[in-house]
Amino acid sequence: MGNSNWTQLWLDYDKKGCDANKEVKVTFEGFDKADRVIASAVKELTKGLLGKEREIVLFKDESVAAEGYKLFSQDRKVLVKASDANGALYGVFALIRAEACSKDLASLDEGEMPSNPLRMTNHWDNMDGSIERGYSGQSFFFENNDIVIGERTVDYARFMASVGINGVVINNVNVKGAATYLITDRFFDKVQKMQEIFADYGIKLYLSLNFAAPIELGGLEVCDPLDEDVIAWWKEKAKEVFTRLPGFGGFLVKADSEGRPGPFTYGRTQADGANMLGDIVAPYGGIIIWRCFVYNCTQDWRDYKTDRARAGYDYFKDLDGAYHDNVILQIKNGPMDFQIREPISPLLGGLTKTNQMLEVQIAQEYTGHQIDLCYLMPMFKEVLDFHTHCCEGKDTVADVVSGRTMGNKLAGMAAVINTGNDYNWTGNYLAAANTYGFGRLAFNTELTSEEIAREWVRMSFGLEKAEEDKLVDMLLRSREIYEKYTSPLGIGWMVTPNVHYGPSVDGYEYSRWGTYHRADHLGIGVDRTDKGTGYAQQYYEPNASMYNDPATCPEELLLFFHHIPYTYKLKTGKTLIQHIYDSHFEGEAEAEELAKTWDSLEGKVPQEVFNLVKHRFEMQLYNAKEWRDQVNSYFFRKSGIADEKGREIY
Amino acid sequence: MGNSNWTQLWLDYDKKGCDANKEVKVTFEGFDKADRVIASAVKELTKGLLGKEREIVLFKDESVAAEGYKLFSQDRKVLVKASDANGALYGVFALIRAEACSKDLASLDEGEMPSNPLRMTNHWDNMDGSIERGYSGQSFFFENNDIVIGERTVDYARFMASVGINGVVINNVNVKGAATYLITDRFFDKVQKMQEIFADYGIKLYLSLNFAAPIELGGLEVCDPLDEDVIAWWKEKAKEVFTRLPGFGGFLVKADSEGRPGPFTYGRTQADGANMLGDIVAPYGGIIIWRCFVYNCTQDWRDYKTDRARAGYDYFKDLDGAYHDNVILQIKNGPMDFQIREPISPLLGGLTKTNQMLEVQIAQEYTGHQIDLCYLMPMFKEVLDFHTHCCEGKDTVADVVSGRTMGNKLAGMAAVINTGNDYNWTGNYLAAANTYGFGRLAFNTELTSEEIAREWVRMSFGLEKAEEDKLVDMLLRSREIYEKYTSPLGIGWMVTPNVHYGPSVDGYEYSRWGTYHRADHLGIGVDRTDKGTGYAQQYYEPNASMYNDPATCPEELLLFFHHIPYTYKLKTGKTLIQHIYDSHFEGEAEAEELAKTWDSLEGKVPQEVFNLVKHRFEMQLYNAKEWRDQVNSYFFRKSGIADEKGREIY
Repeated sequence: MGNSNWTQLWLDYDKKGCDANKEVKVTFEGFDKADRVIASAVKELTKGLLGKEREIVLFKDESVAAEGYKLFSQDRKVLVKASDANGALYGVFALIRAEACSKDLASLDEGEMPSNPLRMTNHWDNMDGSIERGYSGQSFFFENNDIVIGERTVDYARFMASVGINGVVINNVNVKGAATYLITDRFFDKVQKMQEIFADYGIKLYLSLNFAAPIELGGLEVCDPLDEDVIAWWKEKAKEVFTRLPGFGGFLVKADSEGRPGPFTYGRTQADGANMLGDIVAPYGGIIIWRCFVYNCTQDWRDYKTDRARAGYDYFKDLDGAYHDNVILQIKNGPMDFQIREPISPLLGGLTKTNQMLEVQIAQEYTGHQIDLCYLMPMFKEVLDFHTHCCEGKDTVADVVSGRTMGNKLAGMAAVINTGNDYNWTGNYLAAANTYGFGRLAFNTELTSEEIAREWVRMSFGLEKAEEDKLVDMLLRSREIYEKYTSPLGIGWMVTPNVHYGPSVDGYEYSRWGTYHRADHLGIGVDRTDKGTGYAQQYYEPNASMYNDPATCPEELLLFFHHIPYTYKLKTGKTLIQHIYDSHFEGEAEAEELAKTWDSLEGKVPQEVFNLVKHRFEMQLYNAKEWRDQVNSYFFRKSGIADEKGREIY
Repeated sequence: MGNSNWTQLWLDYDKKGCDANKEVKVTFEGFDKADRVIASAVKELTKGLLGKEREIVLFKDESVAAEGYKLFSQDRKVLVKASDANGALYGVFALIRAEACSKDLASLDEGEMPSNPLRMTNHWDNMDGSIERGYSGQSFFFENNDIVIGERTVDYARFMASVGINGVVINNVNVKGAATYLITDRFFDKVQKMQEIFADYGIKLYLSLNFAAPIELGGLEVCDPLDEDVIAWWKEKAKEVFTRLPGFGGFLVKADSEGRPGPFTYGRTQADGANMLGDIVAPYGGIIIWRCFVYNCTQDWRDYKTDRARAGYDYFKDLDGAYHDNVILQIKNGPMDFQIREPISPLLGGLTKTNQMLEVQIAQEYTGHQIDLCYLMPMFKEVLDFHTHCCEGKDTVADVVSGRTMGNKLAGMAAVINTGNDYNWTGNYLAAANTYGFGRLAFNTELTSEEIAREWVRMSFGLEKAEEDKLVDMLLRSREIYEKYTSPLGIGWMVTPNVHYGPSVDGYEYSRWGTYHRADHLGIGVDRTDKGTGYAQQYYEPNASMYNDPATCPEELLLFFHHIPYTYKLKTGKTLIQHIYDSHFEGEAEAEELAKTWDSLEGKVPQEVFNLVKHRFEMQLYNAKEWRDQVNSYFFRKSGIADEKGREIY
């Protein structure tokens, strides 16, 4: 769109050849063109649709599901049917997408209804402009402890709406310093200005909350959720917030975690904390999103019994059913922390009477920092498709978090997002596939990883089929490749402490973080069976038994659940140690193939994009070699068992 | 002296019971009482001497060596004989020390002449107030990119003079930012003011230099030491510096090291760089102190041939004799970097035609951060007493760096100092033993570790003999204890990267720093023999052969020179692995004894001192346990060999 400070991601209408000044004929059936969201939809059609000879009818049809849409061609018209404005907007974006994906607009007959009611992004942006685990520059929401609002805010909202996001938490879950004051007069006007922009695109704004606000803002001595003064303070605060911020969505809370304050400080339960806040915001239609990332982060590495993986379930399962209706628990996909391979959190579906939201991370904290290519939809699909066996039928994670299992309305998916103020928003141009992909997947969990990848490639690059196939294939293979050259068979970690990029096999082995591989001269892995930490028993049957037995445990998770000798024979017939060697050599070699395939796209993608991504692949190869050689050397030195193929190990 | 912002260290005349307003009768024979240094000596006598009934005669005696002194009692007089003012000042401090050490002033007949002409401290203080590897607070020389001068500056100079220091480099060897401007108009006035204070105590001020100053200050495109414009720029700069800073000592230079610019950038030698600067400052009587800490800090850990330990010798030995007379090379005691145990740098005495200064570190970067007790004089004594075999007789390091071996005048010792603006100057009260000790040892390398420890304990605490013995014994044992619970048999490192406190056995194993232990399933150690990196051959015979053979290599350095199987029998009859287990259990147990012995001194030392040191010991015990358990677990897991005594290993 001619703005030179940031790209237009998958909505680059200039590239597509759109005339921004053309007129598109739009008519309205049942929708009010003055509605803010409908107005945005019309604006987008005007800018983004090529086929201006066509008439677009925004048609209100109460039979369409909430926020869903249908596209239907009729003569020279395209009907965008929806029962609400968000649905109409999503239908318009779907129409633009259909055109970009070269569908025949004359024969459209398709539609989607959102799988999840809540489809959210979580920004870990700090008010000083830094982003915790951000790999794409600084925040575009905050700088110098103030809020920044401008054209980029609008574009951000457009991008999010284009993939169906309807909720955004703008500040880091670790709420400190100035961010504590986001719910005060100091920032109300600017927060309101930002949420007006979001509202134009059907997005609600949420804030992360400092549980200790009654102390830090209110001057109280405690933030005990059962203390009357604390409750009274919150009541006043909620009234103030929802009055000053009409349309405000609610709060995301990280409590009792990694040094953050919470109800445990006062001997209260997580439910005590969440329900108190839930009750406070209920009169205003607000919700409380309560994170379940609670664990002991000062563990003694000598302790083989305490298991961080157990913590979420142990802390929250007993309180199932105790949470109020406007409270939703936000649960990370795995029991640890966004590793390249983890089992599914047993809390998902482990709770059967509590609103649940799935939290994933597209900021590639442990998956390559947006340097290494790692398209995450295959991982997220595995999570969504996992049968929890929490009930007969409708027992997948997708069923649980969408509300289908329990029939609850407060349900959905959230992603810790990978954006920043880099020119291309995501550091690596190709990392935008995850930004796009998460939104699409949250909107429609039935889409395949490939369908999403192909949409994104088409909208972003408009390549010939052969090249498109290459790029889609690169994306689809990337997660497995990253997994191969990093930590083996689900054991995770082995990363450089704090930074979380690059290998350090023992980096977290003797630490306080509860993140161990327990490798010795004979074997590796954590015994999480009924003879070990008992974590496997947190699953329903038959999952519990499956994980409990190395013979039935999925091999990609073998070391997560079992301590296994290096000489153990895997189903391939390879020994464990040989698998470690082979997979690391293969992973590095395949990363080289990725880089070469990218090289073959020179001239097919914009040169600037080509160059910058090529540089990322150079860095990825350096990283992959370090991982390959350090992991292989570590296990060779420790086991004394040589590589059967006699390759170089140091 | 009543100032509440910092202690008086070993010159606490208040505690001693001195009346600061008393008059001491001082007479002068040959000395000018108006001389700035003599005036300081008189001031110190007035404040610090108890026995005011005595007459002190400052007696100029040309037969006393430069900066030396003799104390001689005659009737009710004490004669302080010296041939120069510094000697007289040191004599006065010796008299105060004698009194504090309860010597009979009526029968004094003693003296010292300095072993080393240069006795320097190096401050790694940055102008923002931080101190690189500082564990005692912030800088008292700099804050907010400016110079701070006050009463603390005076006290600092007094303390240094009291132990014989005659040169101080006030800024970090890594010269960046504002520090580059110390040789410009911005700071001349304040530097001059500081060096006037120093001069009152016989101390010359030196500055660390940015080798790239011609670029950063002069606007030139290069800092090539053979470039005419660069030379011309330096000539002008030297003229300006020595004109504006009369009495200025010269420059300390870290070049071509850890990212700092240097002559290598331009294909020049270290001598080209040092000599160019030497020539520039020669007309003003200035000197250039050139650090030899030059090595490849981007090594590939896969490379078993490149050896960081070799670097100093490899870079500097060939240029022996090429350095100009007013250039002196500053050489760290070991070839690596201030580890708890290293062999002596083969460059010391390896050079036989070049001025050399020994650099040690009393900032406890790798020796416990002034949390863990580690009295370093025993280590320094080993260094000084080491026979280099560079010639017949006068071949110890003490001989070499004092100038005795070669008859050179520019020679001496320097310490990276352990002070900061903490109330007690050194973080741990007991760490001041190293501050005191280094000065005393540099002044008189014949003193034993115990003599120095006892002097410091007497002057600092004035304990009864039994308690004094306890504390002296704690100091004397502390280095061996620290060594026992940290890295074994000279291998070094195994510390948490960057921080350098606490264990991380593999922390530097796969890094770029050239710091490896090469442990595998069967053994550990770096082969630095003629079959390995050849480092051992950098020594003169018989040292080279001694180190080359594990049978004759001192066992405390065994793993530095050899890769040794865990089952290797040491001279004690123990296997290597059992030695590792035993020494780590012993080291931790002995650290507990240290803490207990300290507990027994409660009531004998000031309560505040007792409490704070007790807290340090608590931290030391936590550290010692982590070291013990992590090192033992690491080697047990790697070797699979059990502890013969069946103690708990994780």
